[in-house]
Amino acid sequence: EKRAVLSWVPVLSWLPHYSFRENAIGDLISGCSVGIMHLPQGMAYALLASLRPVYGLYTSLFPVLVYFIFGTSRHISIGTFAVISIMIGSVTEKLGPDSNFMGNGTNGTVDYDRRDAFRVQVACSLTVLTGIFQILLGVVRFGFVVTYLSEPLVRGYTTGSACHVCISQLKYLFGVKPARFTGPLSLIYTLVDICRLLPETKVPELVVSLVALAVLIVVKEVNDCYRQKLPLPIPIELIVVIAATIITHFCGLTSKYSIDVVGEIPSGLKAPQAPDVTLFSDVIGDAFAVAIVGYAINISLGKTFGLKYGYKVDSNQELVALGLSNTVGGFFQCYSVTSSLSRSLVQESTGGKTQVAGVISSVIVLITILKIGSLFEDLPKAVLSTIVFVNLKGMFKQFMDVPTLWKTNKVDLLVWLVTFASTILLNLDLGLAVSIVFSILTVIFRTQLPRYSILGHVSGTDLYLDTDTYKEVRIPGIKIFRSSTTIYYTNAEMYLEALQEKSGIEIGKLLTQKKKRDAKLKRTQEKEKKKAKKEAKKQGNGVESLTETPTNGRVNWAYQHDVTVSDSDSDTGGHINTQASHSGDEEKATHSIILDISTTSFVDTVAVKTMKNIFRDFGEIELDVYLAGCQACVVEQLETAGFFSESIPKSRLFVTVHDAVLHILHKLGRGDCLLVSSSL
Amino acid sequence: EKRAVLSWVPVLSWLPHYSFRENAIGDLISGCSVGIMHLPQGMAYALLASLRPVYGLYTSLFPVLVYFIFGTSRHISIGTFAVISIMIGSVTEKLGPDSNFMGNGTNGTVDYDRRDAFRVQVACSLTVLTGIFQILLGVVRFGFVVTYLSEPLVRGYTTGSACHVCISQLKYLFGVKPARFTGPLSLIYTLVDICRLLPETKVPELVVSLVALAVLIVVKEVNDCYRQKLPLPIPIELIVVIAATIITHFCGLTSKYSIDVVGEIPSGLKAPQAPDVTLFSDVIGDAFAVAIVGYAINISLGKTFGLKYGYKVDSNQELVALGLSNTVGGFFQCYSVTSSLSRSLVQESTGGKTQVAGVISSVIVLITILKIGSLFEDLPKAVLSTIVFVNLKGMFKQFMDVPTLWKTNKVDLLVWLVTFASTILLNLDLGLAVSIVFSILTVIFRTQLPRYSILGHVSGTDLYLDTDTYKEVRIPGIKIFRSSTTIYYTNAEMYLEALQEKSGIEIGKLLTQKKKRDAKLKRTQEKEKKKAKKEAKKQGNGVESLTETPTNGRVNWAYQHDVTVSDSDSDTGGHINTQASHSGDEEKATHSIILDISTTSFVDTVAVKTMKNIFRDFGEIELDVYLAGCQACVVEQLETAGFFSESIPKSRLFVTVHDAVLHILHKLGRGDCLLVSSSL
Repeated sequence: EKRAVLSWVPVLSWLPHYSFRENAIGDLISGCSVGIMHLPQGMAYALLASLRPVYGLYTSLFPVLVYFIFGTSRHISIGTFAVISIMIGSVTEKLGPDSNFMGNGTNGTVDYDRRDAFRVQVACSLTVLTGIFQILLGVVRFGFVVTYLSEPLVRGYTTGSACHVCISQLKYLFGVKPARFTGPLSLIYTLVDICRLLPETKVPELVVSLVALAVLIVVKEVNDCYRQKLPLPIPIELIVVIAATIITHFCGLTSKYSIDVVGEIPSGLKAPQAPDVTLFSDVIGDAFAVAIVGYAINISLGKTFGLKYGYKVDSNQELVALGLSNTVGGFFQCYSVTSSLSRSLVQESTGGKTQVAGVISSVIVLITILKIGSLFEDLPKAVLSTIVFVNLKGMFKQFMDVPTLWKTNKVDLLVWLVTFASTILLNLDLGLAVSIVFSILTVIFRTQLPRYSILGHVSGTDLYLDTDTYKEVRIPGIKIFRSSTTIYYTNAEMYLEALQEKSGIEIGKLLTQKKKRDAKLKRTQEKEKKKAKKEAKKQGNGVESLTETPTNGRVNWAYQHDVTVSDSDSDTGGHINTQASHSGDEEKATHSIILDISTTSFVDTVAVKTMKNIFRDFGEIELDVYLAGCQACVVEQLETAGFFSESIPKSRLFVTVHDAVLHILHKLGRGDCLLVSSSL
Repeated sequence: EKRAVLSWVPVLSWLPHYSFRENAIGDLISGCSVGIMHLPQGMAYALLASLRPVYGLYTSLFPVLVYFIFGTSRHISIGTFAVISIMIGSVTEKLGPDSNFMGNGTNGTVDYDRRDAFRVQVACSLTVLTGIFQILLGVVRFGFVVTYLSEPLVRGYTTGSACHVCISQLKYLFGVKPARFTGPLSLIYTLVDICRLLPETKVPELVVSLVALAVLIVVKEVNDCYRQKLPLPIPIELIVVIAATIITHFCGLTSKYSIDVVGEIPSGLKAPQAPDVTLFSDVIGDAFAVAIVGYAINISLGKTFGLKYGYKVDSNQELVALGLSNTVGGFFQCYSVTSSLSRSLVQESTGGKTQVAGVISSVIVLITILKIGSLFEDLPKAVLSTIVFVNLKGMFKQFMDVPTLWKTNKVDLLVWLVTFASTILLNLDLGLAVSIVFSILTVIFRTQLPRYSILGHVSGTDLYLDTDTYKEVRIPGIKIFRSSTTIYYTNAEMYLEALQEKSGIEIGKLLTQKKKRDAKLKRTQEKEKKKAKKEAKKQGNGVESLTETPTNGRVNWAYQHDVTVSDSDSDTGGHINTQASHSGDEEKATHSIILDISTTSFVDTVAVKTMKNIFRDFGEIELDVYLAGCQACVVEQLETAGFFSESIPKSRLFVTVHDAVLHILHKLGRGDCLLVSSSL
């Protein structure tokens, strides 16, 4: 029982053993650095979520504390993140558009207070629902759902999101107010509208943006270059924010140029408040998408650090931890959180060892909210936008995936591009669904068009390789057929066709011929019977069976020896002499077919039926069919499916192709030996 | 060029060689039998499509003639079919509900003539669009789309459709008029409404239905039992129709009991008419569903006969043929066609050899339309419903799939049940889409949870089998790991976890230990350096490398010989003596890992990354990793993905596990030989 508690509340297992000597200094420095990052990022990302900046600060505070208690990763920094923020923003703007909050009659001014209060309610409801989804998924151990988000998908998705973020921030940069669009293609419409409004750009805001952007980019580059030499990265974002606030305030830029600033920041914390459950039904789809995406980003980052530092990050516990962070956060006016790459890297590189660093960062955020927050009221929104912009750098770097994937894996490139395009065109919720379906479809594509090959024997070994690639020698009379992938319903028919084509045996034609012959024979027999039975019936049958059992005369007597050896299991030898086997009528002389199904990993009813048909039809034209290389689980599935019967005995099953070949040659060498030599 | 024409218009290739002696009699008898079946079925299924019976007769006429020219199957009977009819019916009723055709003011009577004319327009537009889809798919050689409809899916779908058919016909049987429902769950609502209306059942109609049903069932059973002895099946459907018409007419049942009858049947053919293209946008989704389902039923039946009689049915030409039948038919007031199982079986069993039988059946239908049709005006609709019912028998038999699949393949059972349920609950269009997506998802499920195993050596052979199932001997120091399925993004992480668990090597822990040791060593070294360099640095390194390279002392000297033999490729032997290998510290002594990836059929970037990580991480704790059993196409993909590098040379790739084992033992036996014996 104690173990269960420890696994649900991991802090109990590590905090009592917290080593001050080893970790305290690292955690303190790291916590301060991350806390300093939280302030500008929190405020900036809150704008993305279409909320007032203070809610970003709340989001940097409460969830971090909850994660400290329940989380299993020691290095990630929970809090605001661009992709999640923009997802929240799309919902808050959809459910709380300006048009719903027009002042009563006074020619169309928007009641911003009412609007923003409503948007906070939407964001909190969404966040609580997101948390509930994550907790549920974690409790039922469904952490694996995230495996459906393959790497190319996640990277394409975040790149697409970055474009959304970018375009949503342009309006602050240029100080324009584009119309609001919803639904598919809204990104394109917004971009077009911004371009249309460009002549109305507010030059002061643009100047502020460009100056801030220049400073941020230059100093961030310096940070990157001298990462080894600097004890801490320069907290340039905070410096820019403070500088911008001071300049705006003391130069009176707000009144002179009417620059859009952050506005009132209430001091102190708010009492927790239950979310508006009536909004749940409106946000349920988005909440699920946020839950999945947030968790996917969180776990991939967590696992990376876990692997690097050699500790275990438990997928399901992470889901629960993130879910609790969101649920609790939602009550305290926070919006959805996940771990941020930029902050987590700082937390790690400045020496953070445990989540104690997170607590320290929270303390810094708390102090800001309580005491200093209101000083930021004159901060221009354009400066916050530039902070968002420079933080997108990493995500835009992912465009380099395109040339890389072009060289390495075209199917994954397709996944990347489809995800990116659908995220851009269909927005973040529908785009994600389309991408996941497409990503799953690619697995079907990849297994739907297998490479089929006839295998040949590598002399002196027991290897059998593709005769098209390697110039191995085919064994006369035996066709060994392999598909590069599992046989299932989408390719079962193709398997049958490829088998006929590659082996040169047209089963339909041969079956008809046989039927005609049989019918003819029957008629002949009846005639003969009637014809006073002059000749023996048996002779006729004999002739028939000779033409019906095509055998090959080039089987070497040496086989016999090897077969005996192999059967007694004392040697793996089996020297097959296949020197003199190239001959024009080789195809006609095929007497056995070995289906190498070592690549088959499961069987469905269609595959079983196809196999059964192969055994039946080829059996009818007196070709022996064998299965080789069956995996244990496939054999089980075949047994369950009732595949083996009197007509398909289990003795047709061999562990390797070589065993099957030896068995055939053994049978042939012994039983039909005389027949073989007589047909020479 | 001539060949191209022949392949597009197959009739030109076979009709000139038509052998009257061989085929004419069979085709004539078969054509008459099928023609006689067409009459009642056509009229009955037209009711299903919510059209007047005469349109069913048209549908039994024109498309058959078009298929005669373009089709490649010799035995199928094109025409009306229950599933397609009910799909058409759902569209005609949706777009042309009674409520749209209320008479002007005269207290709510429906203008049936206008309604039915509109419904015909809808059906024809849908049919033309269906045909266009099929032609397009055929021309671009997309016949393979039908492979997405696996057998369990098609059977579940047709069973679900049969339930729709059944319930749609109940109203005629009981003579009630339930309300019309649309959208999901409409089937349930309709059923509930019919139950509610049961007290209003018209007894005369019920009596007519029950009598007709009894006769049909009994005679159909007789037909089945004496199939061998009867030259032709008794055309009981036609007999019932004629008898019912005569009785109704001469006993005046219509006026006495107000039984609902077929009503006016116009004599003669109508001039062709272009479809209403404005309706295309309303029916586009349904048209695609009808195109796919119609083709799927057609091709599966065609291929069955093709295989049975040994001729080739070309998927793409069949699409074109069916598409042309529908397109042309749509101009002549026909609705969508496909082949019907019941008629095709009769066509085959009564001796039909070619599509000439189809032409003859058309002649019979044509005569009926021109001369006899109007005689059927007094046929009760209830009798037509009973014909629909008895023809559903085959589809309802498919419920027996459930116990069969339960025993043979649970995943396919799930596909069947999900398809059936979604068809019942979400109707025929949306249900099909959901089923296809689910069916594709099952492939992911089946490959997502592979069976992982450590392989052991079967002594005296070069076989390596699962040590859990078979009690093979593990080779000391070498772990051979295999996944039962391809490694790709949904299971890559699990692969890594299973590898660690099964091999007992916790890579994270070991990496941390190594780092700590390295750091310690570094510190020690620095201390030592400072400490006046009393002791040689080298000794420290030496100690480290001894603990870092865990080697196994139980490697037998006999290996060396075998390795030499194997390397010179003169023998496949390699007798590995693994007698004395069971030991507690075996895990610790692992020095090599062989990943048997023979089941992998493609690689995506996630798989490549996972593999790379395995090579890097295990390499860091000085374990050698090897790949074995790579398929040629996988090697190509790995090369394209830039998998091989200096750290992962291609020499780590072996054709078989045995080769890799021999290589390792060779390396060990030679190079580290002294080390090995010294650690003993």
